[in-house]
Amino acid sequence: MTVVTLLTDFGHKDPYVGVMKGVILGIAADARIVDVTHEVGAQNLREANFALHGAWHYFPAGSVHLVVVDPGVGSERRILAVAYGGHLFLAPDNGVLSGICDAAGAESRVVTAQRFFRAGKISRTFHGRDIFAPVAAHLAAGRARFDELGEMISDPIRLEMPEPALRQDGALAGRVAHVDAFGNLITNVRESMLGGSGRAIASVELLGHRLEAPRESYASVAPGQPLTIIDSFDYLEIAVRGGSAAAHFNARVGDEVRVRFA
Amino acid sequence: MTVVTLLTDFGHKDPYVGVMKGVILGIAADARIVDVTHEVGAQNLREANFALHGAWHYFPAGSVHLVVVDPGVGSERRILAVAYGGHLFLAPDNGVLSGICDAAGAESRVVTAQRFFRAGKISRTFHGRDIFAPVAAHLAAGRARFDELGEMISDPIRLEMPEPALRQDGALAGRVAHVDAFGNLITNVRESMLGGSGRAIASVELLGHRLEAPRESYASVAPGQPLTIIDSFDYLEIAVRGGSAAAHFNARVGDEVRVRFA
Amino acid sequence: MTVVTLLTDFGHKDPYVGVMKGVILGIAADARIVDVTHEVGAQNLREANFALHGAWHYFPAGSVHLVVVDPGVGSERRILAVAYGGHLFLAPDNGVLSGICDAAGAESRVVTAQRFFRAGKISRTFHGRDIFAPVAAHLAAGRARFDELGEMISDPIRLEMPEPALRQDGALAGRVAHVDAFGNLITNVRESMLGGSGRAIASVELLGHRLEAPRESYASVAPGQPLTIIDSFDYLEIAVRGGSAAAHFNARVGDEVRVRFA
Repeated sequence: MTVVTLLTDFGHKDPYVGVMKGVILGIAADARIVDVTHEVGAQNLREANFALHGAWHYFPAGSVHLVVVDPGVGSERRILAVAYGGHLFLAPDNGVLSGICDAAGAESRVVTAQRFFRAGKISRTFHGRDIFAPVAAHLAAGRARFDELGEMISDPIRLEMPEPALRQDGALAGRVAHVDAFGNLITNVRESMLGGSGRAIASVELLGHRLEAPRESYASVAPGQPLTIIDSFDYLEIAVRGGSAAAHFNARVGDEVRVRFA
Repeated sequence: MTVVTLLTDFGHKDPYVGVMKGVILGIAADARIVDVTHEVGAQNLREANFALHGAWHYFPAGSVHLVVVDPGVGSERRILAVAYGGHLFLAPDNGVLSGICDAAGAESRVVTAQRFFRAGKISRTFHGRDIFAPVAAHLAAGRARFDELGEMISDPIRLEMPEPALRQDGALAGRVAHVDAFGNLITNVRESMLGGSGRAIASVELLGHRLEAPRESYASVAPGQPLTIIDSFDYLEIAVRGGSAAAHFNARVGDEVRVRFA
Repeated sequence: MTVVTLLTDFGHKDPYVGVMKGVILGIAADARIVDVTHEVGAQNLREANFALHGAWHYFPAGSVHLVVVDPGVGSERRILAVAYGGHLFLAPDNGVLSGICDAAGAESRVVTAQRFFRAGKISRTFHGRDIFAPVAAHLAAGRARFDELGEMISDPIRLEMPEPALRQDGALAGRVAHVDAFGNLITNVRESMLGGSGRAIASVELLGHRLEAPRESYASVAPGQPLTIIDSFDYLEIAVRGGSAAAHFNARVGDEVRVRFA
């Protein structure tokens, strides 16, 4: 019973996700299908990439991860399959697999084996149903091997991802990478960028506000108070206990976050 | 492992859908339950019917499709079971199965066999839990046969569905039937109404705007530009590349779409 | 194939729920995971408690019910496991299991057996992933017994829940406990509080409006008209046929509902 995860920008209003599941179960009756999220902003590749990075390694080895955020559907953009860390990934070749396809040990292939696509007409607007779901299902059912999908490639498209940078004054300048449903501000500053040199954090600045060094838990400040914390995915996070940091600071994705060291 | 699909207007806030799944798994422990959508507008039969038509035939033969959009719950409205195309359908007899119950080869029955309902009190407000889910589960588990559910009927209720009509000037007048989560405008004009006679489309008109003949893919226009296209369900669609046609044209369900031929 | 239900305030935007499912399937590959709801208001314990009460007993005996609404995550709050009615429950010890942990025959334990937690670092912000999901999965897979989780306790935290009260004038004063997605107003007045003494209801008052005694079904009034009804969970409900009572009365959770008897 192979796990197939789904990550799209389809939302929950339309039957599109259900249709993909129907196609998968028609080929791989035993597949365990799990939704990662379908509420990625429309055609927002960075947001999809961020969600994928947070999720995939918590699934059992052998899982097939399907990402359908596909602004180029129907164009000549390639279809990408990646094997990495004992998992398989399928997505449009548009950068959404950045950080996976270019990781050490990853193998990327361009999917061209049409015998694993849906039989009959392939639409120009819904490859999730006609190509991605069938290929994922064939992999999950053991009816397709990864190396049968198509030729190896070395040039999958990468997203340009803004990385935190050291400023002349010694501060580390990152940004808000994601605002979660609680209003927590997840930055692109990883714990490994902070502690590696043993430097203690003096403060974290956001939109003119100065916050203290990371706390051990939300409960270490009073309700309604802001704090910084290293979150459960090892990112520096700005939060408000029992509230929304996004509302508290009127902050959004892309806002600069500056870390000052002692 | 029979697939049971669920299509309701219950939304995701309340535990109603989860409760139906609990009831199903209590009777058919092996059933594979798939959500088609639960975000149909409250008691919107047309929207539910549209979603069902787009979805059911992508599921494996033998699937049981449960539609609970039920403004008449607790009244004397009948409960309808339909066998069609190797699939089974269960819904209130309120028109939501239009186009399926009246298709050639479909067999309709009124569900009266109370031994397949939930044991104990049947509520007057939640037949999804007390009648539809148990009957679907008995079918999925092979503990009920379709012909045991009740008597055949020939008069299931049909929705009055506005169909595209030819105008005196030769144009085909349809309407926006659905706005999807991307803001794509799905019309009720099917590809078969356009190409059968070999007539080329000259233009498509919506709210005073004139659009060109259908393109092959979204990518055939520049980002932000509108286009028409035959979508993946064979409907004429009005879209904006990388954007929302609903916002671009301030359009909504019911707006007239006029197709002019060359 | 044990059922594991999930009830959280995580919403559907972030991959948090998917991650928990990945962790569960890595330990209990056969578990049947069902979402009860993930749209409980952020850190709203009463709303979570209400949803749980409506849902759990419709699942098969042996199910494991996981409730992760956890404002105290990372603090010293305990983790609670309860066995009741042939079901198992896991949640933070914050009152969210009120009415279950204190029911006759319920057995409560504080979960301390770290061998059932996720291997490696336990985060201070996401116990749903690192503690609750693994423990639930070990239970579901039969790899942990309830009595191995930790010591029995007799003092789990209870929510203070406002109960309907008899006023001097003989009226029963309850409140709106939940507004569902249809806008139905579910009160905290149970059928058993109304009919036990054989007293007939004369009227129901809400925000200065006077409604008649409960009807048998929504269809017993004209479309657009308000009514009272005993709902499918045995609560007194105020509804509008084919509409939203919340909008009609501009009502919200906490508003007083007064039942007058004949």
